[in-house]
Amino acid sequence: MSMTTQMMQSMSKEMGGMPASMDMTVMQECIEACSACEQACTMCADAGMSGGMVKCMSMCMNTADMCNTMMRMMLRPTGFDATSMMAALEACMAMCIACADECLDHAEMSETCRMCAQTCQECAKACEAVLTMMKAMN
Amino acid sequence: MSMTTQMMQSMSKEMGGMPASMDMTVMQECIEACSACEQACTMCADAGMSGGMVKCMSMCMNTADMCNTMMRMMLRPTGFDATSMMAALEACMAMCIACADECLDHAEMSETCRMCAQTCQECAKACEAVLTMMKAMN
Amino acid sequence: MSMTTQMMQSMSKEMGGMPASMDMTVMQECIEACSACEQACTMCADAGMSGGMVKCMSMCMNTADMCNTMMRMMLRPTGFDATSMMAALEACMAMCIACADECLDHAEMSETCRMCAQTCQECAKACEAVLTMMKAMN
Amino acid sequence: MSMTTQMMQSMSKEMGGMPASMDMTVMQECIEACSACEQACTMCADAGMSGGMVKCMSMCMNTADMCNTMMRMMLRPTGFDATSMMAALEACMAMCIACADECLDHAEMSETCRMCAQTCQECAKACEAVLTMMKAMN
Repeated sequence: MSMTTQMMQSMSKEMGGMPASMDMTVMQECIEACSACEQACTMCADAGMSGGMVKCMSMCMNTADMCNTMMRMMLRPTGFDATSMMAALEACMAMCIACADECLDHAEMSETCRMCAQTCQECAKACEAVLTMMKAMN
Repeated sequence: MSMTTQMMQSMSKEMGGMPASMDMTVMQECIEACSACEQACTMCADAGMSGGMVKCMSMCMNTADMCNTMMRMMLRPTGFDATSMMAALEACMAMCIACADECLDHAEMSETCRMCAQTCQECAKACEAVLTMMKAMN
Repeated sequence: MSMTTQMMQSMSKEMGGMPASMDMTVMQECIEACSACEQACTMCADAGMSGGMVKCMSMCMNTADMCNTMMRMMLRPTGFDATSMMAALEACMAMCIACADECLDHAEMSETCRMCAQTCQECAKACEAVLTMMKAMN
Repeated sequence: MSMTTQMMQSMSKEMGGMPASMDMTVMQECIEACSACEQACTMCADAGMSGGMVKCMSMCMNTADMCNTMMRMMLRPTGFDATSMMAALEACMAMCIACADECLDHAEMSETCRMCAQTCQECAKACEAVLTMMKAMN
């Protein structure tokens, strides 16, 4: 069990914020997916050397920033606000999907883009899982 | 005219990305509003000393991160994707409105919260203006 | 007077953290320089289209992140730690100077790089002014 | 092997930037330590409810931001600049050590602070390992 998972469990005992019915495993998977996606997108933005990849680099920088914002939001149970989190999850999903589509266009030329696209798709799915869970709770 | 405005104008001549019909004044105002809101929320999160303000502090940290992500996205015309930007603007608006509501609850006790709430409301309005403009373009 | 300046003054009355002898005008100028530099570097990283500018783009992304971290640190008087802040100012200065040097190499080809280099130099100077002030206080 | 490690290896084959003599295992451990520390500090800043922990919360927010900046810098080999990276590593170490010291003061009251302090100490050590390696290369 990672330190982050241990801390999340320790915090949820100490304080309120997030609804008790929230499945923390689904949330924790999304935190890890966002972290992985931020790292992959940061590397991919750095690697896009040829002229044809400027759109990919720029979208990757946006996705890295959004994934970091999304991850931090899930690490802050105290300020939990369902409407805000659902809107952020929608934005993170939209950006990951658009970024994956752009990266897939270069997947045959660049191994970095292929791996980045895969990480973006996994992050979009993890965000969707949290969103589905939250919609079922309302 | 600020350096950021000058650079945005210089960049839009050099490259594509954002649609030419985009009103850069509306966008520039939103960039400034996001920057001001990130700063105000960062300070407000740091200032919330008493026990009653923990939700406010946590929401302010989320809003600061989202405003930074939003601002950077608008500073990157190369990776412009209308669907992604509209989803991010919706998320930024939702978070600024929720944060302003929370901060307003402490506005009489704390001058910092009162000013932060005002900055959040202005940022929500600036995001809405860009969103309205983009919807009219589609 | 900007909202950020007003809030900084309001906060310094409410709480401790930073030493009272700290000249807040010098600090405020550095906050503004960091904010401007983050914006300029984010745009410059997005604009570097041709193959020759990849090092510039990558350094600009690093500098944008460091300037944001530096700015936020100065907006948080509560956690003020002189050793940490001086080390961060040294890092921010080193990164702004290296980034300005790299951008200057493309200043004749790209107006964006020319303006970004200028903003980096101003940020390095503003960091140095805070550092000089802090060293005099010790 | 994590996706980040795979991508770092794939990238180092594709491009220059970082010196070939750089031990990527040491670097990779530091990337993971920075990521873990950003997550721990973000949670710890959110958890510090009682009045006595405001300094801890504020320092944790600074450390989270610096660790994210440091992590991203190591994920961007293209813009590698030894002077900048060494200054950033010094800053990250100083902030992690100061934050760990502050968190340790509350370690008996708060399990979150205890785990955050440990993560900060591990991050400081990982930064020092990269710094030691880089100094030996000069």
